[in-house]
Amino acid sequence: MPLQVRYHECDQQGVVFNAHYLAYADMACTAALKALFGSYGAVLERGVDLVVAESTIRYLAPCRFDDELVVVTSTEKVGTTSLVLRFTVRNGETTAAEIVTRYVWVGTESHRPVAPPDDIRAAFTA
Amino acid sequence: MPLQVRYHECDQQGVVFNAHYLAYADMACTAALKALFGSYGAVLERGVDLVVAESTIRYLAPCRFDDELVVVTSTEKVGTTSLVLRFTVRNGETTAAEIVTRYVWVGTESHRPVAPPDDIRAAFTA
Amino acid sequence: MPLQVRYHECDQQGVVFNAHYLAYADMACTAALKALFGSYGAVLERGVDLVVAESTIRYLAPCRFDDELVVVTSTEKVGTTSLVLRFTVRNGETTAAEIVTRYVWVGTESHRPVAPPDDIRAAFTA
Amino acid sequence: MPLQVRYHECDQQGVVFNAHYLAYADMACTAALKALFGSYGAVLERGVDLVVAESTIRYLAPCRFDDELVVVTSTEKVGTTSLVLRFTVRNGETTAAEIVTRYVWVGTESHRPVAPPDDIRAAFTA
Repeated sequence: MPLQVRYHECDQQGVVFNAHYLAYADMACTAALKALFGSYGAVLERGVDLVVAESTIRYLAPCRFDDELVVVTSTEKVGTTSLVLRFTVRNGETTAAEIVTRYVWVGTESHRPVAPPDDIRAAFTA
Repeated sequence: MPLQVRYHECDQQGVVFNAHYLAYADMACTAALKALFGSYGAVLERGVDLVVAESTIRYLAPCRFDDELVVVTSTEKVGTTSLVLRFTVRNGETTAAEIVTRYVWVGTESHRPVAPPDDIRAAFTA
Repeated sequence: MPLQVRYHECDQQGVVFNAHYLAYADMACTAALKALFGSYGAVLERGVDLVVAESTIRYLAPCRFDDELVVVTSTEKVGTTSLVLRFTVRNGETTAAEIVTRYVWVGTESHRPVAPPDDIRAAFTA
Repeated sequence: MPLQVRYHECDQQGVVFNAHYLAYADMACTAALKALFGSYGAVLERGVDLVVAESTIRYLAPCRFDDELVVVTSTEKVGTTSLVLRFTVRNGETTAAEIVTRYVWVGTESHRPVAPPDDIRAAFTA
C-alpha cells in the first residue's frame, strides 16, 4: 500500500508524529482485507470482525512531509481466534517503522472471540 | 470551554494546524449542548439532531503548543430550522480565531430539516 | 487531486468529520503549488510563504469510508498580497463540499504581507 | 493526567480509534516532564531530548465519547541512555489500555544517544 506523508501529519520537529504510524497500519490492514476479500464489509457479512488487541511499533527512521512510503503487510501468525500481522513501513531504501499487531476475531453480533470461517483463515495463511 | 493545545496539533511551523480549529468549535458546540440540555444524547432523544451546513473561520493570531485557550460560544441567529453559532477562540488577551457555523436541525429519523421543539430553540435565544 | 477517505476520518455517524475537509483543502493547495512550481519548498525559496487568513466551507453531501474523492482547485481571485482559492470536493457525480480559502502572501523572513514575485502571481492567473 | 474523549476521536464503531492512545501517551509524557522539570523546554535547555524508539499498546476495554479518562504515568526502567515509561489509561474503575514506551535520550545538537544529566535521570528513578 503506497501513501504520501501529509503536511499535517508532521509535528514541529518536522517528522511524522508517532501515532500516525498506527493509522498507517490500520489503513494497510483495510487494504489487505480489500485485496483478499473484496472489501472490509465483505468480511463483516461473514459474521466476523477484527478487533485490535495489541500493537508493537518500532521506530527506525523518521519520515518527513511528502515522503512516499510503502506499507508492506505480511502474516506473522494465524491462531484459532487470533491473527498477527506485520506492517513494514518502507521509505525508499529505508525501513522507517515496523508494526506488529495482534487482532482477535469476534462475532459481529456476540462481540466475543470466535474462530473465523476456514476460507478466511486460509487466505491469511497463503 | 477551556482547552490546552496538544503537541501533535501543531504543524512544522510550530502553530496549530488550521483544521484543528474546526475540531475545537465542534467540541465547544458539544459542551454548549451539554450545558443547556445535560448532554448531546438528550437532544437526540427529543428527535432532532444538528448537522453542519457551513462554517467560516477567520484566523487572527497563531496558537502554539501548551497555550491555554478558551472557546466562547454565542448564538448568532436562531432560524426556523437553522441555528448559527459563533465560537471565539481566545488565547489570553488575544482572539486567535473566530468561527461562525450554520447548523440545520434535522429529524433523527427523517434526516430532513425540521423545526426543533420550542424549548430547545428558546434555550439558544436566551 | 484524488484521495480516498480513510477509516479514522469518519466519525460515529459514519461520515467524514467536518474538520478533515480543511485538511483535504490544505493537501490540494500543496498539490497545486507542486504542480505549478515543482514543490512548496520552491515557493519558500523565492522568499514568500502563504498564510491562511480565512476559510469558508459549505457541506453539501456526506462522504463515507473508502469513497474516492477528487479535489479540484481553482483560482478565485488574485490580489496584490492575497490569493483566494476554491477547492471543490467531488465524490463521483456529487459535489460533497466547497471550500473557499483566502491566503495572504508573507515574507519568509518578515512574516509581513508582501506582493509575491510576478511570475508566481501570474501562475495563479493563468 | 485527566482527559476527556473528544467526539472526533471515536470511529464509526463508536469507540476511540486505536492511534489516539499513542497521542494520549505522548500528552501524558509531556505532562510528566512538566511536573518534574517545569516544562518540556526546560529539558531541551539541558541539552537532551527524548526520542521514541518503541511502543507497545495493549487494548483492554473500549473508550467512548465523553468518557473521562485518567492516564497514570510510571517509570518502568531507567537505563544509561534509555528510559521506559508505562502509561495506564484508566476509565473509571476499568483499565482501558496499557502503553509501554521505550525512549532514547539524544543530544539536542548531535541527535545521537547520550546519558542525560544525573539529576534528570534521578527524577525518573524517584
